[in-house]
Amino acid sequence: MATATPSATYPRSVKIVEVGPRDGLQNEKTMVSTENKVKLIDLLSDSGLSAIEATSFVSPKWVPQMADNSDVLKRINRKGFDSAIAAGAQEVAIFGAASEAFSLKNINCSIEESLERFRPVCEKASDLGIRVRGYVSCVLGCPYQGPVEPSAVAAVALKMLEMGCYEISLGDTIGVGNPASTLAMLQATKQVVPVDRLAVHFHDTYGQALSNMLIALQEGVAVVDSSVAGLGGCPYASGASGNVATEDVLYMLHGLGIETGVDLQKVMAAGDFITNLLGRSSGSKVALAMAPRRKSHL
Amino acid sequence: MATATPSATYPRSVKIVEVGPRDGLQNEKTMVSTENKVKLIDLLSDSGLSAIEATSFVSPKWVPQMADNSDVLKRINRKGFDSAIAAGAQEVAIFGAASEAFSLKNINCSIEESLERFRPVCEKASDLGIRVRGYVSCVLGCPYQGPVEPSAVAAVALKMLEMGCYEISLGDTIGVGNPASTLAMLQATKQVVPVDRLAVHFHDTYGQALSNMLIALQEGVAVVDSSVAGLGGCPYASGASGNVATEDVLYMLHGLGIETGVDLQKVMAAGDFITNLLGRSSGSKVALAMAPRRKSHL
Repeated sequence: MATATPSATYPRSVKIVEVGPRDGLQNEKTMVSTENKVKLIDLLSDSGLSAIEATSFVSPKWVPQMADNSDVLKRINRKGFDSAIAAGAQEVAIFGAASEAFSLKNINCSIEESLERFRPVCEKASDLGIRVRGYVSCVLGCPYQGPVEPSAVAAVALKMLEMGCYEISLGDTIGVGNPASTLAMLQATKQVVPVDRLAVHFHDTYGQALSNMLIALQEGVAVVDSSVAGLGGCPYASGASGNVATEDVLYMLHGLGIETGVDLQKVMAAGDFITNLLGRSSGSKVALAMAPRRKSHL
Repeated sequence: MATATPSATYPRSVKIVEVGPRDGLQNEKTMVSTENKVKLIDLLSDSGLSAIEATSFVSPKWVPQMADNSDVLKRINRKGFDSAIAAGAQEVAIFGAASEAFSLKNINCSIEESLERFRPVCEKASDLGIRVRGYVSCVLGCPYQGPVEPSAVAAVALKMLEMGCYEISLGDTIGVGNPASTLAMLQATKQVVPVDRLAVHFHDTYGQALSNMLIALQEGVAVVDSSVAGLGGCPYASGASGNVATEDVLYMLHGLGIETGVDLQKVMAAGDFITNLLGRSSGSKVALAMAPRRKSHL
């Protein structure tokens, strides 16, 4: 048995990237009106969340949930939007898989080819002074090929860094990771990309999101993606979880004494709003546990 | 921001104490027949779990779910029962709170008085060669007094050690702990009780059970309590979680390369059996995520 180990250190503050309105709603069956999306984003913005994925400019043929992308962006509460701009949040995102099988199956080209297609986007964004965030999917496993080598994640992340991404979000798309695979993946990636350029994006499909995140924090990662009320179920299994819930992440971070600048109560209010609309219960355990107290305060 | 920290080490193997049939069913509203309890215990025993809380000898007036305690113990599959005896599992348990307010409110006496009442039990058990397990409740927070000092936990654990307990299970009864409070509590307790005499018992009420357990493993704790299918809801909030699910614990432990001797598939089969009986969905995310695959294999 191991003896006691030196206690880990953690980042003093962590930035939360709220992905509920885009990544979350995109994977919910119930459609939400533009007005209500705007209200959700305003509520989240009011909680102190400074980075919110608002929408996605993808074809409405494939993702009808985001067909109102222009409307949403135009109508977001002016104050929240100004704050977002002031915080430098005007940005676009590019996507790449760490798994060749996933890339071929989903977009019919190799990882390398998919990244090359984004090169002009990155160059244009650079000219306009717009930041580019890179998303790497399948960093801890792939639904088609199974295990993914840490070196494959590192290679894609490095490429995105070289293409000008200010931040690279490492996504466990199918939620199969565990603390050991998370550690191996991060240690490989940190060798080629500075840790302060890395973010993590965990899914709670197997209940491992927070323990994986704890490892990421111990490794110095200080940006985490999460979704209010755990919006965005797992597309592979009904009843299974997708995105880790922002509320549960905040509970852990604040418990660790890490600053986030985000008000948990206000995030829970935003979660109440959207889960009522969707007619589903919250995917956040914190929100469920605190629900009776919250109602008695209304 | 923190720089990279040295990677933690973990125990090579971990013993899981399955508490579903006792602590779990005791907190479920639906009554389960003696025959089905016996079947559940047999299924769990067949999965490789060597330590299973079978029942509780408490007054049926207060805990009607355990009124059939004698029947259950007599009728457990002979093979499983023999294995349990062979593994030295014949034991009794004593309980004490780390919170004075909890002790006074629940059993109307101080922590000290409650422990003294158990002294004759411990002496008798020692004479008969029966092992005594100590349970400390409210180690990370109390529903009445709020925060609980790590030194209070350490004091109760030390007392139980001195009274002859071979193992002391530290319970976060209301699930409010986080990785930082877990660390502080364990570091204080390890100063007075050898870590190889300690177990942890986490509730997932706020979604923190596995990250707290990860910290405990990093601190060298190698015995964890858990409940198949997360049996045992939280009595304080409907919909909220109680015991951490054995399946999710196994997923993390096996992912970390830690030996448990337990077959996850067989535990999930036991979980399917009992959740079908109770008419509720599993509290294990692993069980939910793997449900479609499990059905296709039937």
